[in-house]
Amino acid sequence: MNSQQPIADFELRGASLCQLLHWLAVGRVQPQALTDAYQAAIERLDPQLNAYVDVRSGLLQDQAQMADRRRRDGVIGRLDGIPLALKDNLDVAGWPTRAGLPGREQPAESDAHVVARLRASGAVLVGKTNMDEGALGATTDNAHFGPTHNPHRHGYTAGGSSGGAAAAVAAGLAVAAVGSDSLGSIRIPASYCGVYALKPTHGEISTRGMVPAARRLDAVGLLARSAEDLTILLQVLAGYDADDARSRRRRVAFALPDWEPGNLRSGVLPDLGAIGVRPDVIELFEQALQRLPHALGERRMVDFSDWDFARARRSGLLLMEAEMLDTFAPDLTDTRHPVSPRFRSMLGYAARKSAADYALADRVLDAAILKMRRLFCQVDVLVLPTTPQGAFPLGGPVPDSQADLTSFASLAGCPAVSLPMGTLPDGLPVGLQLVGARGSDLRLLELAAVCAATLDVAPTYPVLA
Amino acid sequence: MNSQQPIADFELRGASLCQLLHWLAVGRVQPQALTDAYQAAIERLDPQLNAYVDVRSGLLQDQAQMADRRRRDGVIGRLDGIPLALKDNLDVAGWPTRAGLPGREQPAESDAHVVARLRASGAVLVGKTNMDEGALGATTDNAHFGPTHNPHRHGYTAGGSSGGAAAAVAAGLAVAAVGSDSLGSIRIPASYCGVYALKPTHGEISTRGMVPAARRLDAVGLLARSAEDLTILLQVLAGYDADDARSRRRRVAFALPDWEPGNLRSGVLPDLGAIGVRPDVIELFEQALQRLPHALGERRMVDFSDWDFARARRSGLLLMEAEMLDTFAPDLTDTRHPVSPRFRSMLGYAARKSAADYALADRVLDAAILKMRRLFCQVDVLVLPTTPQGAFPLGGPVPDSQADLTSFASLAGCPAVSLPMGTLPDGLPVGLQLVGARGSDLRLLELAAVCAATLDVAPTYPVLA
Repeated sequence: MNSQQPIADFELRGASLCQLLHWLAVGRVQPQALTDAYQAAIERLDPQLNAYVDVRSGLLQDQAQMADRRRRDGVIGRLDGIPLALKDNLDVAGWPTRAGLPGREQPAESDAHVVARLRASGAVLVGKTNMDEGALGATTDNAHFGPTHNPHRHGYTAGGSSGGAAAAVAAGLAVAAVGSDSLGSIRIPASYCGVYALKPTHGEISTRGMVPAARRLDAVGLLARSAEDLTILLQVLAGYDADDARSRRRRVAFALPDWEPGNLRSGVLPDLGAIGVRPDVIELFEQALQRLPHALGERRMVDFSDWDFARARRSGLLLMEAEMLDTFAPDLTDTRHPVSPRFRSMLGYAARKSAADYALADRVLDAAILKMRRLFCQVDVLVLPTTPQGAFPLGGPVPDSQADLTSFASLAGCPAVSLPMGTLPDGLPVGLQLVGARGSDLRLLELAAVCAATLDVAPTYPVLA
Repeated sequence: MNSQQPIADFELRGASLCQLLHWLAVGRVQPQALTDAYQAAIERLDPQLNAYVDVRSGLLQDQAQMADRRRRDGVIGRLDGIPLALKDNLDVAGWPTRAGLPGREQPAESDAHVVARLRASGAVLVGKTNMDEGALGATTDNAHFGPTHNPHRHGYTAGGSSGGAAAAVAAGLAVAAVGSDSLGSIRIPASYCGVYALKPTHGEISTRGMVPAARRLDAVGLLARSAEDLTILLQVLAGYDADDARSRRRRVAFALPDWEPGNLRSGVLPDLGAIGVRPDVIELFEQALQRLPHALGERRMVDFSDWDFARARRSGLLLMEAEMLDTFAPDLTDTRHPVSPRFRSMLGYAARKSAADYALADRVLDAAILKMRRLFCQVDVLVLPTTPQGAFPLGGPVPDSQADLTSFASLAGCPAVSLPMGTLPDGLPVGLQLVGARGSDLRLLELAAVCAATLDVAPTYPVLA
């Protein structure tokens, strides 16, 4: 290939962030051309997909031109010229933060901490993506902004609550995306859409300027097309923020002393069927494990018989819903823009719960922390499917168990990575999840990269659609 | 004084822990004789004082004999032979943990983390001390075990909830004591009884085996007769406990980089009267500050106009009461041993509060953390009275504001020391409080020792009574 020959749009849209940074660095593509490729694809494809709720062409062009200028001047940031998407619960100054709810048209006064960091790194902010109302749900079948469709199959859910963000990354409408994850909201859509996700250690990335769900669970979540891309995003975004009460100043060292390649202890649950994982997901999971002995090392059964998955789910939801009664109080009383009956009903459930119920639910988080500590004495990493099922049809029944495999890491505050595990018999993807001790984020991402290379399921993005 | 001459009992009972360790080391006193002096004083004085609810002479003698033997064998722990008191909300294996409530006669199965550490250090555990019901209150006017009297004036409160522990230390019935502090329960009685107290950084000392009040506020608290004594106790007790979800593995370094002696920035509130501090306490506080310019350095006014003391108090109490509805559920339904109407009424208040109310109260803690971070950018230490008033008559009206000056450090999770500030016109003591950034515990104790030497109010213990 001639080095002057332009790279085709579908290649730009299917490339990883690492690859694009390389092409930008060597001049194979200019920021303006890269942005144009993504913008054209959004205009062509997003009316069907509905990943975005807010894209502003003028601002997008301004950003691309500034990136072109910085590139010519040779003064560039870590992500300079890379088109990124933002979930619509992150403040962008001058834009409304809708959080999936109607009537929230007041523009934000300032950027969320992560948005400011992305701007400073030179990223091109493409737009805000669709999500479940208030981030309370995992389908992105939004009553006000319409459903986001799974890029792998129209009419199927993209998962949620960061469904628009995951669909945009999978469909080649954003190189990567930043969203949120309180019980699985970044990992569930990554699993259904076949992309990579990181839910970092609690407090590792500031949540200032993100609409709160439950402060003790809330994390900024990252979506990308490779584990290496997630590592770059984490390094841009992680850090102490004195204005976020949950931000941690002394972060745990980014390495565990006793992780040796090929000498890992990987924990797996003895009976995934008993906790509601579908047989086709179990079969794919077993196949993946059989292909990963070198990456995952010794396989050890871990005991989760003392862990009540349904109770953990209910407890996490109560913490979110109770806090949302305050966060969304103006929305709940805005008669001109009513919230959906489902959202009102979920928050109504919490409104009938007592302070003592909340305290009991909060104790489940302490139990999760203790379980996590014991677990990571026995094993280095916990390996399980990301979701108990793959994507399902929009409008059909929604399984209760969607977040059951992701919520443990949220309750315990530890990092979790989801990577594509393969394709289910119905042709849809599902994710493999790696959960590590607090602070092991970068080691998890390294391990995910090794697993991904072995599984070789990365290039399944429907970017040519 | 002849080195072989025995030390008088009143000297042993008025000495600091440091002094006693020295006398034990050089053989001026034997552990058995030391224990005997304390035991005799308890038998003589505690019927009037009512500091203890459980002292077991046989076990006490066993411990003293073992301490004598260890001393002869030359294999001794850090606190070997030192008689210490424990608040009755800390588990001691084989003893009931009454927590100020009736009917809790079931013996504890194992020692609390701190009790195990004290045993391992060779301390002689004298007995369990009186407290407010469930640690919810600050008078130690206990409906079931009777009131503890202030050693400085019979018929006056010792403060609470660790009132028995503070009275025992002040009256020479224990060298030091370990209790708990969730909103001020160790500092308030220290202020009223004229002793020294430390509420450490949240998570610095394990709370495992302590009856929980509110996990996000709960701290083990220390009482002693000097700042140096508190330092020794902290070093024995601090450390990571994997079985306590709130214990912190990476503890903040025990020093602040920019604390230079004589070059300190001390924050004081501009108008203590406006937040309910009594004029006699303000006058004593101003006199103390005038004597401490060398110790406290530059005096800076700090802005607390954004801090709602009453709201902070109500929020902290709700977190405690809501969790107690579960912790004390068996006690609330035990018809043979009814709790007091006051206790039932306080928990009844929380029972009528919603999960959303709890979430809002919990947010005040996040606000406290942010305020604390900003505060300790401007000053190195916050200096204020420990309590808005001194001790008041038992049975009379109880001021609402007792914990208003102590609760901020609890909500923000930062350390606070109380030291005797002097004597009010009515002849009763009141405390001076130093509050520092998280992890500054040892620096605060050093500063307290410097202040104590200047104020010279230490030897006021009524040990001759």
